[in-house]
Amino acid sequence: MDLLSIQNPSFLKKMTNQQLEQLSEEIRHFLIEKLSKTGGHIGPNLGVVELTIALHKCFDSPQDKIIWDVGHQSYVHKILTGRAKDFDTLRQYKGLCGFPKRSESEHDVWETGHSSTSLSAAMGMAIARDLKKEKSYIVPVIGDGALTGGMALEALNHIGHEKKDIIVILNDNEMSIAPNVGALHNILGRLRTAGKYNWVKDELEYLLKKIPAVGGKLASTAERLKDSLKYLLVSGMFFEELGFTYLGPVDGHSFEDLLENIQYAKKVKGPVLLHVLTKKGKGYHPAENDKRGTWHGTGPYKIETGDIIKPVNAPPAWSKLVSDTVQKLARKDDRIVAITPAMPVGSKLEEFAKEFPDRMYDVGIAEQHAATMAAGLATQGMKPYLAIYSTFLQRAYDQVVHDICRQNLNVFIGIDRAGLVGADGETHQGVYDIAFLRHLPNIVLMMPKDENEGQHMVYTALNYDDGPIAMRFPRGNGYGVPLDDQLKEIPIGSWNVLKEGNEAVILTFGTTIPMALEASHLLEKQGISVKVVNARFIKPMDEALLTEILEQQLPILTIEEAVLQGGFGSAVLEFAQEKGYHNAVIQRMGIPDRFIEHGSVKELLREVGLTVDHIVDKILTMTPKKQKRA
Amino acid sequence: MDLLSIQNPSFLKKMTNQQLEQLSEEIRHFLIEKLSKTGGHIGPNLGVVELTIALHKCFDSPQDKIIWDVGHQSYVHKILTGRAKDFDTLRQYKGLCGFPKRSESEHDVWETGHSSTSLSAAMGMAIARDLKKEKSYIVPVIGDGALTGGMALEALNHIGHEKKDIIVILNDNEMSIAPNVGALHNILGRLRTAGKYNWVKDELEYLLKKIPAVGGKLASTAERLKDSLKYLLVSGMFFEELGFTYLGPVDGHSFEDLLENIQYAKKVKGPVLLHVLTKKGKGYHPAENDKRGTWHGTGPYKIETGDIIKPVNAPPAWSKLVSDTVQKLARKDDRIVAITPAMPVGSKLEEFAKEFPDRMYDVGIAEQHAATMAAGLATQGMKPYLAIYSTFLQRAYDQVVHDICRQNLNVFIGIDRAGLVGADGETHQGVYDIAFLRHLPNIVLMMPKDENEGQHMVYTALNYDDGPIAMRFPRGNGYGVPLDDQLKEIPIGSWNVLKEGNEAVILTFGTTIPMALEASHLLEKQGISVKVVNARFIKPMDEALLTEILEQQLPILTIEEAVLQGGFGSAVLEFAQEKGYHNAVIQRMGIPDRFIEHGSVKELLREVGLTVDHIVDKILTMTPKKQKRA
Repeated sequence: MDLLSIQNPSFLKKMTNQQLEQLSEEIRHFLIEKLSKTGGHIGPNLGVVELTIALHKCFDSPQDKIIWDVGHQSYVHKILTGRAKDFDTLRQYKGLCGFPKRSESEHDVWETGHSSTSLSAAMGMAIARDLKKEKSYIVPVIGDGALTGGMALEALNHIGHEKKDIIVILNDNEMSIAPNVGALHNILGRLRTAGKYNWVKDELEYLLKKIPAVGGKLASTAERLKDSLKYLLVSGMFFEELGFTYLGPVDGHSFEDLLENIQYAKKVKGPVLLHVLTKKGKGYHPAENDKRGTWHGTGPYKIETGDIIKPVNAPPAWSKLVSDTVQKLARKDDRIVAITPAMPVGSKLEEFAKEFPDRMYDVGIAEQHAATMAAGLATQGMKPYLAIYSTFLQRAYDQVVHDICRQNLNVFIGIDRAGLVGADGETHQGVYDIAFLRHLPNIVLMMPKDENEGQHMVYTALNYDDGPIAMRFPRGNGYGVPLDDQLKEIPIGSWNVLKEGNEAVILTFGTTIPMALEASHLLEKQGISVKVVNARFIKPMDEALLTEILEQQLPILTIEEAVLQGGFGSAVLEFAQEKGYHNAVIQRMGIPDRFIEHGSVKELLREVGLTVDHIVDKILTMTPKKQKRA
Repeated sequence: MDLLSIQNPSFLKKMTNQQLEQLSEEIRHFLIEKLSKTGGHIGPNLGVVELTIALHKCFDSPQDKIIWDVGHQSYVHKILTGRAKDFDTLRQYKGLCGFPKRSESEHDVWETGHSSTSLSAAMGMAIARDLKKEKSYIVPVIGDGALTGGMALEALNHIGHEKKDIIVILNDNEMSIAPNVGALHNILGRLRTAGKYNWVKDELEYLLKKIPAVGGKLASTAERLKDSLKYLLVSGMFFEELGFTYLGPVDGHSFEDLLENIQYAKKVKGPVLLHVLTKKGKGYHPAENDKRGTWHGTGPYKIETGDIIKPVNAPPAWSKLVSDTVQKLARKDDRIVAITPAMPVGSKLEEFAKEFPDRMYDVGIAEQHAATMAAGLATQGMKPYLAIYSTFLQRAYDQVVHDICRQNLNVFIGIDRAGLVGADGETHQGVYDIAFLRHLPNIVLMMPKDENEGQHMVYTALNYDDGPIAMRFPRGNGYGVPLDDQLKEIPIGSWNVLKEGNEAVILTFGTTIPMALEASHLLEKQGISVKVVNARFIKPMDEALLTEILEQQLPILTIEEAVLQGGFGSAVLEFAQEKGYHNAVIQRMGIPDRFIEHGSVKELLREVGLTVDHIVDKILTMTPKKQKRA
């Protein structure tokens, strides 16, 4: 059928299983083709083609609420709800969002990007439904990886207690982004290998009836004995323990199984967990055989070969530079231990793990645990390196405050994907970390200007013994600058003048340094001499240099790829105020007070006004020369 | 024995059970007597007297690491580690901390205050121990309430997976602070009622041997069958599912049981969970019979009667004012639903729960779930009121960012215990919320000057339909001001001039208003006319009024009982900068960049310089008159 003509999922109601299979084929073909050009979360979406179709056939969206956890697996849902025509613009500026978006469709009832939120959202919706005495099904779809996130477990606990009618679809593909971690995962494994549960249960019930009646204790536990049948078989009654009716495991690529079990789940009172086995990348050979997580989300690729199209001779990724340096240092310092919450691939820690299998811990999607475990390591004199994306560090804010900073422990936090991240959009922008870390006592917060300074900062961080130290670095690749052979310590709190000038000063760090330099060169041509400072320590600042600049009464422009409120620029304002420089002329550039959607980083920078042109304009308004001209 | 003479716990090694019982008596007597004067967490500590003694008898602290989750139950541990002599100063300024404190003793290996961190800390310590090839026991002691916190579940999952040697002591008293919530709690209940587990297991094994052999499927599951014995009995193999060896339940007030089981736990390889049943308040009648949580932590009390000594005719608590107003509004608006993460008593929501049992959710210690569940409710047009302490809102930072603010949902967050909290000290100070919320798009953040404005703000918040809105309010009691009968809306972002003046302006809100007014009156006597503004909206600010003040070129002093960096004062600096008021003289008073320990709020305010005298001095330095005089 013509996928582009789909308006809403109601057409599924009348389709036969054979027609649904045909539709699945078409959707797979569509996804493989479209994503080969735009890139996107191909693996997760190929895995849920049948599941998504089955859900939309059995439920009436949007009256029934289908809630996609994490949300990167909602492409098939988007196709079935009238958005196939927008896939050419997927994850592009002003184009189709890669995650559910309430403004896109009434069928997107919940927005995500971070994992493990769907069950809490479902509980809120279920309470609302029951208070309003409405009838509807509430159907969170959560992956096995997302289930290990603390908040999902909090929600499971609460839902099991309250016994609300919620149908949890556990989309179990044996990996989240990287292969999964944790005891829960093993439980799922046992459920998975237990085979056709219901069939075996019947057989066992028959066998047990043949066992002679046993009196006393056993008889009084008749009810438990009945329950224990399940234990005998699948040895994994985790979910029933928590108060759920467990159904499955079901073949997530068989419409017969899916439809039958979903219909059954609709009849059960109280919370149900339907365990669905899917295969990430199903139907596309390179993605299907991915054991590592490469095909979780990709850029464009060649369909025939599965070769991912990469820029030729691109400089190494920032994550790689940082992890390689940590690895190099770990050879000489056996106190170094690396920790990642489910991002060994993204954080490029696979090589580290190979060389130091005992000193690398992938804790699964569990940022809170990761941060406090790092604190625990540090109490024992170890040197933990916590590799974490800026946006996910938000989950561990309290642990950074209460466990790491308050105890002033030597934890090195590598804040990856800091700044604008591009195609993943507003749920993933790493623009808050300065504002949520800068007010914490004891922490050092820095950002390097290039890979070479980056490696020295890693060295500095792992040699630092006075408390927590964090280094932000951006998503994507470095500049390819030469790397010094010899690592050296950068004095804590020291800035660095990159270009002299005597009419204005730009204070900036990290990704915005090149545009500041370019602007200053353009200004030079207009006869305006601008000093550019690499303000690589956001906290503590270089108070001596800053004082010197303030004493010179030069206008100061701060630039940061982060939110303005409470950010680095505010730190400069605060310092000038505290030291009594009331007449200082200070301007700030950064991310304004709104959420920034998806697009290329370049487009987003332009949108928020972080461009060379804007810097030039700003400096012109700040310098007396310009004022004289005007 | 003389408790004051105890230097360290080694004396326990030689003691008989009878002597230990005698010691328990003495410690209980000591605690009941000392806490009757200082106040403190009496209930939790009376519950763990025998457990703490048993742990220190069986383990060698500090080589073995005893990690107290939450930490308010560490008083007995403090007595046994040489700190009995300091109990007269408990929770007082410069006195003994009410929580573990590494600077107090080498036996305090981990600091806490927030719950559910001990397992992650233990995992970190276990990894360090094993990498260093040391031998030691790592013994986190966690309550049943703290176990429902997401990060504890994340850690259980990881520990079970890694199979590290950790002995988790589950201190199960059937309540955390208030009675417990959640499916996990029910599992513990079943374990509890299962009685003497080992004994029944033997009996069952005997019975099962009499059952004729069954072939086929059953025989192939022989191993599972063996495991399932436990299921048959206790129907709660939750912990073994997760990879732990489960021991218990054990009578936490019997040395015989405790010592035997702890010694046994020491021999088990891999993670062990020893389930210990204790009774909060054990040995002190009023505390022992507390079903509500009143005796969790108290002020001073009369030992004989158990009457808690309260100030006579104290005005109502802030929490009560807020909850009462929400309750009143809930009578007319059935969209209002109250949510608390385990604080129905502290947040004074018991009356609400009685009147609206279907519209009040205590989700247990699960701040992340609480926040996102509120978001879920709001997507369905409900009006959730999330009652949460400032310090615990830190746990839900990402949920506030990603789920509530990003989706711009109508959630009313009541930020209780905002500002300095006093005796609970540095883990509980509510001084970060402005800095971690102000940079979030869409949120409204406000703080009332008194109870009357407070009730109007609650009304305003629950009538507000444009996104999230948060109201901070302090710990403790209001001023007893008269309350208007008619509730009214306060225009969002409107400030209010409390006192006119034309030489300087103080911008402040909430608790610091009275000292600002007093200072302004003192200054008036010195001939300096100071305007005092109730800057009740921290975000958005009253830009019109602020512009007017800036236009007048009056020096501005901002005062806030919150951290300075990124706080309200910084917002004023940012505004002045953005609007081009480069010559504005702005000074800020607030909490400096370090953690603030325990003490009375008054003492702490003095320590950080938030006093009338300092305000007077500051204004004097800022006003031209003074400068002329100088």
